Amino acid sequence: MTPISVVAYGLGPIGLSIAGLALDRGYNIVGAVDIDPQKAGEDLGTLLGRAPVGLKVTADPTEALAKGPQVVLHSTQSHIPQVLSQVIDCLDAGACVVSTCEEMAFPWYRHPAAAHRIDRVARAKHVAAVGVGVNPGYVMDVLPIVLTAPCKDVRSIHVTRVVDAGKRRLPLQRKVGSGMTKDEFLRGVGDGRIGHVGLAESVAMISDALGWQLNEITEDIEPVMDGAAVKGLHQVARGLQGDRSVITLDLTMAVGVPNPRDTVVIEGEPPLNVTAAGGVHGDVATCAIAVNAIPRILEAPPGLTTAYRLAPIHV
Amino acid sequence: MTPISVVAYGLGPIGLSIAGLALDRGYNIVGAVDIDPQKAGEDLGTLLGRAPVGLKVTADPTEALAKGPQVVLHSTQSHIPQVLSQVIDCLDAGACVVSTCEEMAFPWYRHPAAAHRIDRVARAKHVAAVGVGVNPGYVMDVLPIVLTAPCKDVRSIHVTRVVDAGKRRLPLQRKVGSGMTKDEFLRGVGDGRIGHVGLAESVAMISDALGWQLNEITEDIEPVMDGAAVKGLHQVARGLQGDRSVITLDLTMAVGVPNPRDTVVIEGEPPLNVTAAGGVHGDVATCAIAVNAIPRILEAPPGLTTAYRLAPIHV
Repeated sequence: MTPISVVAYGLGPIGLSIAGLALDRGYNIVGAVDIDPQKAGEDLGTLLGRAPVGLKVTADPTEALAKGPQVVLHSTQSHIPQVLSQVIDCLDAGACVVSTCEEMAFPWYRHPAAAHRIDRVARAKHVAAVGVGVNPGYVMDVLPIVLTAPCKDVRSIHVTRVVDAGKRRLPLQRKVGSGMTKDEFLRGVGDGRIGHVGLAESVAMISDALGWQLNEITEDIEPVMDGAAVKGLHQVARGLQGDRSVITLDLTMAVGVPNPRDTVVIEGEPPLNVTAAGGVHGDVATCAIAVNAIPRILEAPPGLTTAYRLAPIHV
Repeated sequence: MTPISVVAYGLGPIGLSIAGLALDRGYNIVGAVDIDPQKAGEDLGTLLGRAPVGLKVTADPTEALAKGPQVVLHSTQSHIPQVLSQVIDCLDAGACVVSTCEEMAFPWYRHPAAAHRIDRVARAKHVAAVGVGVNPGYVMDVLPIVLTAPCKDVRSIHVTRVVDAGKRRLPLQRKVGSGMTKDEFLRGVGDGRIGHVGLAESVAMISDALGWQLNEITEDIEPVMDGAAVKGLHQVARGLQGDRSVITLDLTMAVGVPNPRDTVVIEGEPPLNVTAAGGVHGDVATCAIAVNAIPRILEAPPGLTTAYRLAPIHV
């Protein structure tokens, strides 16, 4: 069998590890794109700290997409307005898109017009697009949805994710505010530099799967303090029916936080209480899910989809 | 929207609760089949201990299938040779089939010729068939498969399911040998009255999903003793590569067994250790999964499929 052809679009820390895993899995990487002038022109293997693979990184997506990849592994930014034209270009070139853009996990929530446009272009080109990742895209949405399979009835879903940011890469520690003062943290929240992107998307995804009408999705964020210094964030999104939170996603990402874990509690018949001890490692997981999604996106019907509507992504 | 039309085929304890949940969910039950002469002629509602619903149970599947259901919820026996002609009749009538027959969870393992026949008939009729249930079909196969999504690499999967049979219906307590002597238990294992059906199917399903070649699937069963009396069974299925068990499914079902739970341990990158505290309740879960599978089987491509290839079943 001819290996599936792939373009790696975005070579930050996550994008690079995605490209490395795709290479390891034997996918045929026909293009690698990054706008960073320091990366353009480098051999992809060299950038990965490996032997050269004979593929130069380009800053020009058009050049990579001209190779006609079947799938683009897209890992650039977190918000739809930042990535929309990138995603559309990939679809226009006839490639399926697997994106780690957080808002792509459930784009109908914040950007319905953009979602509609992505869907329309994908259908026209007979390809599919999906946003994936560990969170959003797995531990706080797809996994709880899958865990309702044995339930006759579900009244509420409560997911707790506790991540020790001290064990994660530096950009993530910055994103959770580690080392800041409380004032800096709050300013960072105000201008969008601090905070996890995608929690509300996960609430929206769960409510979509379960057919629950919510009257509101709320999000709250506060610093986790260590004396006068911020060591991370505590962010909670709630899906409300009346004043009752039927979907509660409670995320703590802080340096040195005890008992890291992912816990899903389902109030229903039967009730369920499921814990991944130690939690699911975020960066490795997002990279793996993106590459593991390749066979699933190629099987998916044309259009924009969301992770819970694909057949299960697995190793 | 017109509700989806359903036939309930098999009205034992599981089949009855499936029919009851399908009614509660608003499905249009157009037929109910059971060969038990005590049930035939009864109103389905009455059999459920509810108000009559105006639908008489029939012993003749042809009569029920003549109503042209979109889906048959099939819950009769555990082995493919017992159910094959029933399933074929349903497909021939143009209905999708969701079956709780344990061997249907992965029929290619023990009965490849029958699986091929089911697949051929289903494709010819443009309908789909799947075997579902909590085990096989969910906790020891689909769930571990879903849990590999965040893994770059998986070296082994070890699932432990511990069920307190004392909290389950009497037929199940009998099936696990509760109250027998050790000799009776071993004779029961020998003639197939004792033992969980489907463990090897779960191993086969996982290896199929992960593309792992196994050289053998082994199954061992022993009684769990309480003095001289059997209180249940301990059954282990292993998927071997060489002499290494890469898939180990370890099932204990015994009256009064401590710490009931479902635990999935994945040795890989990243490693995962996930536990459903108290375990997933078997009978409720199988009933719920069967009814929750209705939208998924209607979307599935024609043919015989298996639970991990469907988009996630959820409430």
